[in-house]
Amino acid sequence: MGESLTPRKRNISFTSLGKEETIPLHNFWASTGYSAGTKKLQLTRRQSGARLNENAAEGLEELDELANYEDFHTIDWLREMSRNRLRHRQITQGLRKTFLQKIRILHDACSGWLVVLLIGMAAGTCAGIIDIATKWLITLKMGVCTNKFWLDQESCCWLHEDQNSKIDNDSCAEWRSWAEILGGHRGHGASDYAVNYTAYVIIAMMFSTLAAVLVKNFAPYACGSGIPEVKTILSGFIIRGYLGKWTLLIKSVTSPLAVGSNLSLGKEGPLVHIASCCGNVFAHLFPKYGQNEAKKREVLSAAAAAGVSVAFGVPIGGVLFSLEEVSYYFPMKTLWRSFFCALTAAFVLRSVNPYGTAHFAMFYVTYNRPWLLFELVPFALLGVMGGLYGAGFVRANLFWCRFRKNSKLGKFPILEVMVITLITVLLSYPNPFTRMDASTVINELVQECGPTSHTNLCDYNVTRHYHGLNTTFVPASPSGGLGDGLKTALWQLALAFLFKCIITVFTFGMKIPTGLFIPSLAVGALMGRIVGIGVEQLVYTFPDNPMWKTDCQFSNGQSCITPGLYAMVGAAAALGGVTRMTVSLVVVMYELTGGLQYIVPLMLATMFSKWVGDALSGEGIYDGHIRLNGYPYLEQKREFTHTTLAADVMRPRPGEPPLKVIVQEGMTIYDLEELVKSNTLNGFPVLISNDSQRLMGFVCRKDLIVALENAHNRPEVTEDSPTYFTLHCPASVSELGNSNPVRLFNIVDLSPIAVSDHAPMETVVEIFAKLGNRQVLVTHNGKLLGIITKKDVLRHIAELEGEDPEKIMFD
Amino acid sequence: MGESLTPRKRNISFTSLGKEETIPLHNFWASTGYSAGTKKLQLTRRQSGARLNENAAEGLEELDELANYEDFHTIDWLREMSRNRLRHRQITQGLRKTFLQKIRILHDACSGWLVVLLIGMAAGTCAGIIDIATKWLITLKMGVCTNKFWLDQESCCWLHEDQNSKIDNDSCAEWRSWAEILGGHRGHGASDYAVNYTAYVIIAMMFSTLAAVLVKNFAPYACGSGIPEVKTILSGFIIRGYLGKWTLLIKSVTSPLAVGSNLSLGKEGPLVHIASCCGNVFAHLFPKYGQNEAKKREVLSAAAAAGVSVAFGVPIGGVLFSLEEVSYYFPMKTLWRSFFCALTAAFVLRSVNPYGTAHFAMFYVTYNRPWLLFELVPFALLGVMGGLYGAGFVRANLFWCRFRKNSKLGKFPILEVMVITLITVLLSYPNPFTRMDASTVINELVQECGPTSHTNLCDYNVTRHYHGLNTTFVPASPSGGLGDGLKTALWQLALAFLFKCIITVFTFGMKIPTGLFIPSLAVGALMGRIVGIGVEQLVYTFPDNPMWKTDCQFSNGQSCITPGLYAMVGAAAALGGVTRMTVSLVVVMYELTGGLQYIVPLMLATMFSKWVGDALSGEGIYDGHIRLNGYPYLEQKREFTHTTLAADVMRPRPGEPPLKVIVQEGMTIYDLEELVKSNTLNGFPVLISNDSQRLMGFVCRKDLIVALENAHNRPEVTEDSPTYFTLHCPASVSELGNSNPVRLFNIVDLSPIAVSDHAPMETVVEIFAKLGNRQVLVTHNGKLLGIITKKDVLRHIAELEGEDPEKIMFD
Repeated sequence: MGESLTPRKRNISFTSLGKEETIPLHNFWASTGYSAGTKKLQLTRRQSGARLNENAAEGLEELDELANYEDFHTIDWLREMSRNRLRHRQITQGLRKTFLQKIRILHDACSGWLVVLLIGMAAGTCAGIIDIATKWLITLKMGVCTNKFWLDQESCCWLHEDQNSKIDNDSCAEWRSWAEILGGHRGHGASDYAVNYTAYVIIAMMFSTLAAVLVKNFAPYACGSGIPEVKTILSGFIIRGYLGKWTLLIKSVTSPLAVGSNLSLGKEGPLVHIASCCGNVFAHLFPKYGQNEAKKREVLSAAAAAGVSVAFGVPIGGVLFSLEEVSYYFPMKTLWRSFFCALTAAFVLRSVNPYGTAHFAMFYVTYNRPWLLFELVPFALLGVMGGLYGAGFVRANLFWCRFRKNSKLGKFPILEVMVITLITVLLSYPNPFTRMDASTVINELVQECGPTSHTNLCDYNVTRHYHGLNTTFVPASPSGGLGDGLKTALWQLALAFLFKCIITVFTFGMKIPTGLFIPSLAVGALMGRIVGIGVEQLVYTFPDNPMWKTDCQFSNGQSCITPGLYAMVGAAAALGGVTRMTVSLVVVMYELTGGLQYIVPLMLATMFSKWVGDALSGEGIYDGHIRLNGYPYLEQKREFTHTTLAADVMRPRPGEPPLKVIVQEGMTIYDLEELVKSNTLNGFPVLISNDSQRLMGFVCRKDLIVALENAHNRPEVTEDSPTYFTLHCPASVSELGNSNPVRLFNIVDLSPIAVSDHAPMETVVEIFAKLGNRQVLVTHNGKLLGIITKKDVLRHIAELEGEDPEKIMFD
Repeated sequence: MGESLTPRKRNISFTSLGKEETIPLHNFWASTGYSAGTKKLQLTRRQSGARLNENAAEGLEELDELANYEDFHTIDWLREMSRNRLRHRQITQGLRKTFLQKIRILHDACSGWLVVLLIGMAAGTCAGIIDIATKWLITLKMGVCTNKFWLDQESCCWLHEDQNSKIDNDSCAEWRSWAEILGGHRGHGASDYAVNYTAYVIIAMMFSTLAAVLVKNFAPYACGSGIPEVKTILSGFIIRGYLGKWTLLIKSVTSPLAVGSNLSLGKEGPLVHIASCCGNVFAHLFPKYGQNEAKKREVLSAAAAAGVSVAFGVPIGGVLFSLEEVSYYFPMKTLWRSFFCALTAAFVLRSVNPYGTAHFAMFYVTYNRPWLLFELVPFALLGVMGGLYGAGFVRANLFWCRFRKNSKLGKFPILEVMVITLITVLLSYPNPFTRMDASTVINELVQECGPTSHTNLCDYNVTRHYHGLNTTFVPASPSGGLGDGLKTALWQLALAFLFKCIITVFTFGMKIPTGLFIPSLAVGALMGRIVGIGVEQLVYTFPDNPMWKTDCQFSNGQSCITPGLYAMVGAAAALGGVTRMTVSLVVVMYELTGGLQYIVPLMLATMFSKWVGDALSGEGIYDGHIRLNGYPYLEQKREFTHTTLAADVMRPRPGEPPLKVIVQEGMTIYDLEELVKSNTLNGFPVLISNDSQRLMGFVCRKDLIVALENAHNRPEVTEDSPTYFTLHCPASVSELGNSNPVRLFNIVDLSPIAVSDHAPMETVVEIFAKLGNRQVLVTHNGKLLGIITKKDVLRHIAELEGEDPEKIMFD
């Protein structure tokens, strides 16, 4: 953390003095007749201008913007926003402008839209490529397209349409399973099954091992879903390289491999991370965004929205996800741009890789029947089950991840991935609901049983009603007792549900890209379908029950229950239980189903799921992982409800050494250098004198270091030169020998945020959360008592909640 | 503004001392081993407890919550939130709870959901009744349903289905025009036309006059759309009675009357106001919301969302409207509850008065054709036109409203309504596109021309292609040259567009409920349909142009352009230009059209509309009216870009008398009473001494008045009694004669928000906007220099923008 005092050329005082007159406010000042103001006020204004110019110089001198903040530091939103305003003023100042200046203003105004357009296009393209690669890898485990090996099963059979074989087996002549290729013949014998099984296991193991090796050696940040980290970064934390090009590349490559290996994970969470990487990469093309950490985060919010948008094909849901779950600072301008970005991404994705239908959405379904009032009971039940599952999953997964972190297991990430993959594929091949990839399973589970459905899920003991060739008026779902196929399917569903429940706990958090959306949705859909079939059979067995008799009487022999809708509701409930999303989840599901009338079941289930989940485990999986990793995330959603005061939290605590401070005049260069070297604090309060302890301002560590470097470069300055943080500085001080005084007034922030020691912590927390500053000074009647940093607040909150405050990452 | 010092019984010191021990923090304090802290810290804590308890006592003693703030004052969000936290702590404190206490906790936890449920149901019911009433009043101008006069035309004819006459004339035997009733026969002669025309004019005049009289005499706040005021209230301003029961009733009654009189206005904006009234009324049932102005505003945000939700049948759009346009403080919890509220309202509305289709939405349309790439050019053009219209409308309407305000016109509101109604109905009857109510017109304009469309709008010179009886495969829109009917329709469209453009300027702002959504949408739809038909004819005339040749080749003789879509896009553009809504507008339109593929045209048009509108007139109509009326609304969306400092804005300005302050010890009761009487300030800074000018705290005016009243009630206190705002107060001071000292430490806020005089105003504005406090104290090294209130900030902004700062309403 300590910074070396290597000399760097930068003359602050010249920059700031030279640009001082540029601030147009003087005009206003004169016009309001306030020019007779005291000298103090005049000076004040000048000083502020100097300070801002000094900041702006940092931005415009094309300093490496990465050097602005250290890794794992928190950004100062107030300072960044003020830098941006100054940058904007500098571009637009003056009345007469050259053509070039006008172009620059236009470029500046457009760059916000341009950058989100580029991000949207990049995110859409990435998602399209990942989609195609994933599909291919998934089917590669089953077999290969002879003569066109780069095609997945669907494309292979679509190109060589073979109507008869397709209906029979979803397969075609060109597509051959591994048994056929290796054995040279076509069959369904036990040995073929064994060959296919073996090929499946081996290929899956290869995929996951490759993914783990790539992640470990090239981009360790590419692991996990990335959403907790993106959330932390958006809240103002710096994790260098987390959104870099290398992470983008490796995550894009390994995510399809991980999904292809049939592990219980998805590529949707990682897509949010990938889109955020795109956002970061493109933000660097525009200095307005690349060199300002606060503005960059606006762009990253939009990128996260685009990520969800392309993951599911739901632009509005994506924006709301970004708003509700991920983002921290989300002004209206960002909302609109996020929407634009999400839409662009969805459109590009559609042109790169359409899902084969005219709709964007991943699991587009339309149900023909409305839901009935009594169904609200099973829907609420599904919500409760989803909440139970979510709470259980969060607790179990956090326990397992903590165990991994603290035990030797954490040292063998590749081995862990291999073992989990082996267990997963060995157990998942026999059951069709786990052998297929999770998206396909979900898609099958949420569909209605139509007259042309031939799967086990729709095997009811009933004569189907065909009305001639015109199939549009055939009742949507045949109903009746359970057929043998459906009985088998129910067993398989139950086993798949149990298996997915357990294996996902061990999968999420491994050192490969692991998304959580799809596994959660899959667990929920399995659960929902089982409940749905149960309700359907209940209604079929007791058709005269008054609860549903009147509602179902019009369905003449048909079921009035849609098990597919239950799967959809269950999926929402499970995902809600795990992530505690609310509005965005309902909107995503609404966009997927495309019918407003199904919002009520979805909302009911989501509400119950959130209530039950919150009651049993206080936090969602993302917040849990943020806490587990000790990221300094100041939760905005939860209110601070304790009654502590600023004085209780501030440093120094009683017994600790006094605060490191600067006195406004008299300290020598040597003193200051020793001060900087002796600690790693981010800044130092400036006092008027040690006696009065009156607060005068605040100096940032970085500014001080640069100022000291500059002073060193001047020949007349020695180590004994006294420094003056005041406006007036004696030209030469004879009694101090031959050392010339150094004026450092320019680097003082004269208006640090300060609170009284009596201020309740709830106010202080609000100041941190809403203004986004890094530290607050604590004073008592103008005397400095201490300082509270964001980290102190987080430690304090951890302490109050009975956790170890020392695990919060350094700030 | 001045408050009388009437005595009121309330013993603050007892309340606060009695409840001091209840704060559970002491336990934590002891557990962290910090109990050895200095005495100062101990005192601090106690002091804070006392202060909060004092606040809580206000809330829990069932004071009239209206007395908390004066009319036209701004609320202190920080204080309200802290009051709410204390209330919550007081309910949940203690380990062992009685059954009653548990019930109370549960009730408290549920009340948030309960209140939004009730509001949703109330808003839905109101909207349903208003819908039905409006429909009836609209058709009443045309005729009456014989034998069932309370039915509107549609219901009348639906009940007495008469297939032949219906296709012919959209009419039936039971429904009779006024000419038929008065003349006793059925006909289409010139005299009948005159009779119908006259009846139409007379009835419309009656409706609008009745509405104006009701509004003027019973609820003056029921006029206008109400959205600017709701926005101001949500930002923390108090306008007493604006959301009261009386306003709710009168606005609900007069809104259908105003729409029924065929004025160019809608009932959608007023529905937002009506829903907010419902919100306010129901909030009073729950002390948690009714007695806390900040919490009440959370509920009002949800109510506003419900208002838009029921106005158009778009729950998600409603929530986003509330988020984007209306609300100020919108935490995630509110988002989720708003969604619930909006959905409840939409469902209740649907059961009260379904639109006749299975869909919620007001203008539900589905188009059969995708849009083509080259169409983005006319869509962008529509956006530009919408922006031009919007900017022109805002400027013209604000000019007219300012004129009304400053001239004698403002004194004759009823006469104004009558004159405008007369002009409107006289001019609108001859043209079918203005004779019908605007919703019907919009609905007709956005529809595709199908094979069964018989209106003038679909009169093309082309032989229609019928494919036998199976009509599902008939191409959706016949295309060809303009038929005579269409030529007439084009003229009528153009005239209607011009007429609506002009008359809406004079209508919006009259003293009856005037919504702006529907007129704007109507103007846009008229404009869009004209452009759409133009583009269609262009493509029809030059079918071989390379721009559209390839895209249109599959349409074999059919048009590949959908003029209805242009109407939809134009409607969005015009509404966007007027209100500058962005995301919520697109989402509303998306919910209305129900197809993601049409988002791109809508978004493009909205973007261009906003850009053009913002370039030509900097503000939307709502912000314009807020500014016109001088409401103290601190815009959060716009950044403060000036470079002034806190010292430039604070009071006292140079030359002004010094600040009214309190010195912490030595002032007599008489001094304080004189201080309170001499001004209407909201509070007074407390200084340690007049010499040092060091800031010690802040006392609210209201608290001081109550404390003085209490002191008066004690026999030993005289006017000469000295007061002590310090912790320690001498028991009796002999040198002061026989007057006992009064301790007023409990009412001091020891941690007022203070900034340095060097603080840039951008930071101060951010503090006001984000923390929501009422005033900021300005200090220089701990010495009090001045005070900045929200009003000072608003005045300062007005000054910087070259406006009259004195028009901001008192605060």
